[in-house]
Amino acid sequence: MSKWYEDPHSDDTPIISSRVRLARNIKKYPFPIKLREKDATKMISEMYEAVERGGAVFSRLNIEATDAAEARSLLERHIISPEFFKSKNKKGLLLYENESAGVMLNEEDHIRIQAVCPGESMDDAWSLADKIDNLIEEQQEYAFDKDFGYLTSCPTNTGTGLRASYMVHLPALEISGQLKNIIPAIAKFGMTVRGIYGEGSDSLGCVYQISNQVTIGQSEHDIINALKNVTRQVIEREKTQAKKMFSEKNSEAEDRVYRAYGIASQARRMNSKEAMQLLSDIRMGFVNDICKLPKPRLTIYNLMMNIQPGTLQKLCGKAFSGHERDAARAEYLRSNF
Amino acid sequence: MSKWYEDPHSDDTPIISSRVRLARNIKKYPFPIKLREKDATKMISEMYEAVERGGAVFSRLNIEATDAAEARSLLERHIISPEFFKSKNKKGLLLYENESAGVMLNEEDHIRIQAVCPGESMDDAWSLADKIDNLIEEQQEYAFDKDFGYLTSCPTNTGTGLRASYMVHLPALEISGQLKNIIPAIAKFGMTVRGIYGEGSDSLGCVYQISNQVTIGQSEHDIINALKNVTRQVIEREKTQAKKMFSEKNSEAEDRVYRAYGIASQARRMNSKEAMQLLSDIRMGFVNDICKLPKPRLTIYNLMMNIQPGTLQKLCGKAFSGHERDAARAEYLRSNF
Repeated sequence: MSKWYEDPHSDDTPIISSRVRLARNIKKYPFPIKLREKDATKMISEMYEAVERGGAVFSRLNIEATDAAEARSLLERHIISPEFFKSKNKKGLLLYENESAGVMLNEEDHIRIQAVCPGESMDDAWSLADKIDNLIEEQQEYAFDKDFGYLTSCPTNTGTGLRASYMVHLPALEISGQLKNIIPAIAKFGMTVRGIYGEGSDSLGCVYQISNQVTIGQSEHDIINALKNVTRQVIEREKTQAKKMFSEKNSEAEDRVYRAYGIASQARRMNSKEAMQLLSDIRMGFVNDICKLPKPRLTIYNLMMNIQPGTLQKLCGKAFSGHERDAARAEYLRSNF
Repeated sequence: MSKWYEDPHSDDTPIISSRVRLARNIKKYPFPIKLREKDATKMISEMYEAVERGGAVFSRLNIEATDAAEARSLLERHIISPEFFKSKNKKGLLLYENESAGVMLNEEDHIRIQAVCPGESMDDAWSLADKIDNLIEEQQEYAFDKDFGYLTSCPTNTGTGLRASYMVHLPALEISGQLKNIIPAIAKFGMTVRGIYGEGSDSLGCVYQISNQVTIGQSEHDIINALKNVTRQVIEREKTQAKKMFSEKNSEAEDRVYRAYGIASQARRMNSKEAMQLLSDIRMGFVNDICKLPKPRLTIYNLMMNIQPGTLQKLCGKAFSGHERDAARAEYLRSNF
């Protein structure tokens, strides 16, 4: 079974992935901010057992014993959150087969269930997260209030505890400068646009996350449907703008795509910011069926994750100085084109 | 017989070509600035006949009937001078086989003999120019003074009437910023460094012309020897600097060479300034044996001439708007890589 970022149609559409995250807390334990280390250890251990009793095929990952590059790579592959990566608290991690789902234990909440599926497959992501949620709920009583819904550390997650998000690639809207007008418009629908690694992160490689802002007062179904509608409109605008940019033969946009391909397949040094930009330009060519050159061995989004410092170090099996890393990144990219 | 810029070793050395130019005037006619149109026509016609009587294999080129792109292409290929290109006077042009020599008639002087040979072959260029000079002198009496030597329109050419020049490619000295110190040092030896199209022209693609400034008070032999010595030293410094720049694996310079190759083989639009820079970077890779990629079909300097507006238009057989020309240039480059 391939990973979500290995999907063969990955480079055909602006939607890279569909993701669902559920925030849950165990009733009998204080919330993480008040949880003593001993109790955190106990909670994590109980959760491991609960999930395994439920029969789900999860593997435990001893995140605290993981070396720095591996932990960074988990972050770069969206398996753990930046908060979880940085947290000094006791923490646990469960990984579902092929990285399609994970459960972070003792992040901001006791339980953060994540499910991710390739392209537009929000319904699949929802089903998977919901299944894991049910499985845990059979074993543990959640902190739940009949008026508020699921209780969470931060009130912005209370209610459904749901954050549904699409990872989208919007090069035409970014290059043309339209995105800065679209972002505030999206906010009016209770949705938000963030950078590639979530809140406060930069928008590298024209990759953005569109997600629901509001978690309370609506059903999960309504939240997801509203997100689908907004995203559909953004994608339409991306496609329209891309079509316009590529309408002329040898357009500036087409030139940009091919130059990016030329550089990615020849450069001897490259920082990650430039690599993301080139991969974005190349992906724009494939999505819009402009680039007639052979596709790289891996999907573009897979490459985007693999050229990040931690994952690159893991793939190369050695630690780098800054200059060595730029040379290794360039070599890695070349070997894929 | 191949042209000087088709020499198979053209991309092995910083010296692109060796050139000799002789300025001469016919005694019985006033200098061009005082020459009436009728007499100019007569002088040109006599010269055509004189050269043909001498038995040299020249072809006449009716430069006044030449279309704008063809005339510009002659300039771009260094067959005519910028002054000759612009001049509204009656003018004549004789071309020796394979562009290795030419005679401009009624340029700044009545006669400008040029000979050009590939790489370091100044002695060959001198022999060829000298042979043509003798051939003409057998038929026509030159304006000559026993104290001053050959008389010319501008006193800076009087004496030998000789301008010997090397066309050199100095990317390492330019990139490292050393060239700006070398140019004034060269002037102290009575030599001068100019851009690719002579006096007042820009230094495109790191191509320069090193030539003698002084034409009087020295023999042709001494002038040429002094130029050889100065040029040899400049080339040594270029090689030393290039070696330093490429000493490290995946150096900035190596990255530069390969990126240029990647862009030149993929871009869809390109202005001539960028094309010259990329070709310069690629040539630096070949000269220093860094670039392991296949050589283009033509020599780099041949490409440098062919991507100029006039020659490109001639090659493509049609006139372009600015944007079309940039697309045609990119396509032409791609087809060569």
